[in-house]
Amino acid sequence: MAPRKKLKGLVAATITPMTPDGKINLPVIRQYVDYLVNEQNVKNVFVNGTTGEGLSLSIQERKQLAEEWMCQGKDKLDHVIIHVGALNLPECQELARHAAAMGVDGIAVIAPFFFKPTNKDELVAFLQKVASEAPEVPFYYYHIPPLTGVKIRVEELLDGIKAQIPTFQGVKFSDTDLLDLAQCIHKNETGEFEFLYGVDEQLLGALALGASGAVGSTYNYLGRQTNLMLQAFAKPDFALAQQYQFLTGEFLNFVIKLGFGVAQTKALMTSVSGIPMGPPRLPLVDASRQK
Amino acid sequence: MAPRKKLKGLVAATITPMTPDGKINLPVIRQYVDYLVNEQNVKNVFVNGTTGEGLSLSIQERKQLAEEWMCQGKDKLDHVIIHVGALNLPECQELARHAAAMGVDGIAVIAPFFFKPTNKDELVAFLQKVASEAPEVPFYYYHIPPLTGVKIRVEELLDGIKAQIPTFQGVKFSDTDLLDLAQCIHKNETGEFEFLYGVDEQLLGALALGASGAVGSTYNYLGRQTNLMLQAFAKPDFALAQQYQFLTGEFLNFVIKLGFGVAQTKALMTSVSGIPMGPPRLPLVDASRQK
Amino acid sequence: MAPRKKLKGLVAATITPMTPDGKINLPVIRQYVDYLVNEQNVKNVFVNGTTGEGLSLSIQERKQLAEEWMCQGKDKLDHVIIHVGALNLPECQELARHAAAMGVDGIAVIAPFFFKPTNKDELVAFLQKVASEAPEVPFYYYHIPPLTGVKIRVEELLDGIKAQIPTFQGVKFSDTDLLDLAQCIHKNETGEFEFLYGVDEQLLGALALGASGAVGSTYNYLGRQTNLMLQAFAKPDFALAQQYQFLTGEFLNFVIKLGFGVAQTKALMTSVSGIPMGPPRLPLVDASRQK
Amino acid sequence: MAPRKKLKGLVAATITPMTPDGKINLPVIRQYVDYLVNEQNVKNVFVNGTTGEGLSLSIQERKQLAEEWMCQGKDKLDHVIIHVGALNLPECQELARHAAAMGVDGIAVIAPFFFKPTNKDELVAFLQKVASEAPEVPFYYYHIPPLTGVKIRVEELLDGIKAQIPTFQGVKFSDTDLLDLAQCIHKNETGEFEFLYGVDEQLLGALALGASGAVGSTYNYLGRQTNLMLQAFAKPDFALAQQYQFLTGEFLNFVIKLGFGVAQTKALMTSVSGIPMGPPRLPLVDASRQK
Repeated sequence: MAPRKKLKGLVAATITPMTPDGKINLPVIRQYVDYLVNEQNVKNVFVNGTTGEGLSLSIQERKQLAEEWMCQGKDKLDHVIIHVGALNLPECQELARHAAAMGVDGIAVIAPFFFKPTNKDELVAFLQKVASEAPEVPFYYYHIPPLTGVKIRVEELLDGIKAQIPTFQGVKFSDTDLLDLAQCIHKNETGEFEFLYGVDEQLLGALALGASGAVGSTYNYLGRQTNLMLQAFAKPDFALAQQYQFLTGEFLNFVIKLGFGVAQTKALMTSVSGIPMGPPRLPLVDASRQK
Repeated sequence: MAPRKKLKGLVAATITPMTPDGKINLPVIRQYVDYLVNEQNVKNVFVNGTTGEGLSLSIQERKQLAEEWMCQGKDKLDHVIIHVGALNLPECQELARHAAAMGVDGIAVIAPFFFKPTNKDELVAFLQKVASEAPEVPFYYYHIPPLTGVKIRVEELLDGIKAQIPTFQGVKFSDTDLLDLAQCIHKNETGEFEFLYGVDEQLLGALALGASGAVGSTYNYLGRQTNLMLQAFAKPDFALAQQYQFLTGEFLNFVIKLGFGVAQTKALMTSVSGIPMGPPRLPLVDASRQK
Repeated sequence: MAPRKKLKGLVAATITPMTPDGKINLPVIRQYVDYLVNEQNVKNVFVNGTTGEGLSLSIQERKQLAEEWMCQGKDKLDHVIIHVGALNLPECQELARHAAAMGVDGIAVIAPFFFKPTNKDELVAFLQKVASEAPEVPFYYYHIPPLTGVKIRVEELLDGIKAQIPTFQGVKFSDTDLLDLAQCIHKNETGEFEFLYGVDEQLLGALALGASGAVGSTYNYLGRQTNLMLQAFAKPDFALAQQYQFLTGEFLNFVIKLGFGVAQTKALMTSVSGIPMGPPRLPLVDASRQK
Repeated sequence: MAPRKKLKGLVAATITPMTPDGKINLPVIRQYVDYLVNEQNVKNVFVNGTTGEGLSLSIQERKQLAEEWMCQGKDKLDHVIIHVGALNLPECQELARHAAAMGVDGIAVIAPFFFKPTNKDELVAFLQKVASEAPEVPFYYYHIPPLTGVKIRVEELLDGIKAQIPTFQGVKFSDTDLLDLAQCIHKNETGEFEFLYGVDEQLLGALALGASGAVGSTYNYLGRQTNLMLQAFAKPDFALAQQYQFLTGEFLNFVIKLGFGVAQTKALMTSVSGIPMGPPRLPLVDASRQK
């Protein structure tokens, strides 16, 4: 395994652009990359995740999209992480091999959530079967209990993880349980793991506890502003950092009242960036057409 | 659409046999069909559902398994219903076309449950996109809120369903909300729809309210006994029917304490039938190896 | 303990009449008793339960109301069961002693639900402390997991219960888990316990499994009709019984869409019976004033 | 209403000492006050809340306990806040009047949670009826959705609250939704309200977002240590603050694995402080006797 690059700065959970008739709109990715880099100062992406409707795409579509991000992001993006999780192991493994062949900077896997692992060992066994198909690629566990219902504490997962998953690199931590996050950080004294916080509206709280980074949907359009928050926090200028966090919150609060979700994010990004993200795919419905 | 055969008797939610190294064990299906027909007097099957770990299989595996059931069930089984649901629409559609091409007796679709439809219209829109790929095949909605979290009432779903899904045939109703079931039955005065109850341990209650049939995992090994319950109910001899239902309950109660689930069902069926069902696939783990 | 009377027929979960300014309207009880007996053919009541807003009343109010029901029900009602449950044990005990002194036909206790018992032993320990304050009074456990979140199976609770609570008489079973109910009935071969089913809209299903009776809010206004269902079931004339159950369901379904609950029940009963039930108490708000 | 004192420093959610036979052990309060002040440097208390098993006590017991804290805390404690919440309004009101008559520094009310308010207006209507019984006493809303299930956002509650509850002073905010907390703080530009964070193990995150204080059970025995965290945060010395937060977390993590809760807190405080807190009251059971 090659010495890994250190992940710096925000990671945008990418949206998947679609045509009006519901096909993936690949030609838009080039514009999207430039927008993230030039307008939002965001150089890392997390592709085919929740925001990207990854689980609503066929395996073929997921591969095509990953390829396009790798191709267009070349020399422009720092880190391209591909989410390869799925409910069934064979597809996860196929996606992991495909990602590895492209030379991605990382792969991530969500906990399976139809049949749910009931303890750490069952979860790690599943993750291990995927990670081992990409033995040179840094591996991230995608922890998002509000959507999966899998509440196995990450802190517990870390014990001995390197022995089972040598490529283990960190966690996309999308939960409000900051006790678990803090314990993870505490266990990570050597700094070998990355904890990328995924609840955008309370990132400041996670930073205070030592989170090393952030991945989320809002960094598609609030990346620049969130970078200013990170700077204020680093200074430290708390009052200023709080102001930025409040603004993100106000923004999300407003959107939440419209029924926040991926459909809304998609409409919003189209409006803010001018890039045509198109409608979401069923079972999501177009936010601009909702009552 | 050809005049449909009337579904009579119990429907077994089939288990997916696997080899010790986790591949699908197709050659076992022949023996399995004979066992259901000869030993349990069960002539209908629901393939690739929850019990069959359908969502843990790749699309290719699901197709192979469906083909094998169609092939081995020819002239032996009355009804073969194939579950073609998945989180993403393209795969559902591909599986629906595949099932249609084989001439199955019905297809079924579970509500998508990562992104969840939030109202009847969103759910029907998704189902319609699948059903329309198999315009000659009776369509069943697979209602199982305890696993999907999609609690849209079926009674509401029925309104106008034939206009949107002309092949709509009925519901696999796996929920304890008997008010909803009763209202469905009440709306079905002409008897055009089938309501197959899916909570085996309280089937008797559902029959009292007018359920037209049953589909479940226990009919793999308690089919004969449950048929006796149906006969007692039809007579009617309630005390006897209750005795049979109590036995199923006692049985399940015992199994539940062992941690009832698909893994346990698999081990149990191997033991009862002598057919080697093998281990489940991750994230499920072998019940016989669990503490 | 005197030989107990056998409880026959439906039990109405009584509504608590209030004056427009929120005081308990005791003088209305007399009229209420006559209405139940004469118009609905219901001669048993369950006082200060959920429908009666028992937990929204002060201990003093609960005593006064219990006294009034005992007084007005004398020679008219067969069974008066008083709910004496509360979050704190001293008040439960005081109410139990008060009920015993009046010579009620039964007391009932809900599981405490702020701090929740986590297993059978903890729950029984709590119930025992109340029951022992009324050592001559038949004791009912009020099982209503959808409201309390206490999901300890009743079937498990029954084991050895008589040794700890000699007055144990039965359960108000307000849950849709008919497996648990069926196992309870199966354990009750000698018929010493009563299982009063409390989910009105699926009573027919529970009867099929052997429930011995019913207690619920709808018997305040659908008592006569439900009695006809019981007769049809006893005959047995299933088609007819289903018709009655469907009517109850249709009715409840309609009300549920208005936001079914105690406030709606109160407005409905006022309208159907002509007895002024008045507004509910906060945190409930008057259904007739809701948007 | 007299000009209020400003609340400074940590608030201990007090434990209720009991005798081995389950009576309230009033004589221990004097020692308890001295321990908090001298050993933990904590001069504010929140009495009869969750930690104090307030809802497991009779109204008479709650009054006696409140009186004892007022009496023993005189000249020693800065702020004595009495929780007067209950499921029924008359008791809340009686407790509020009693607290007011003693001249407490604040009263707090939990959202009713058997019947639950379903929107802001219903919740405020309930709170207002209590607050108005103590028109000179600062009023706190006790927000604890994980226990009550009442998830009405506090940020929404604040709008226009002063018009309905002139004594409104702030919130005991016991939830991990830091977006809601941040929006509250943002709305509190004038600083008229206090937001006391109640999830001890992630206090540091809440401080980063601007929480003005903290109330919790761990400050009974980790008050001194948490004060050091507050100082490190104020400096700011984040690395040090994180160390203290990690220690609290490690501690709680350990206790959680024993089944963290009020019973465990009680046993722990007895052990750490040497003050005999005694057993909890049913439905809680003695942690030292649990398996």
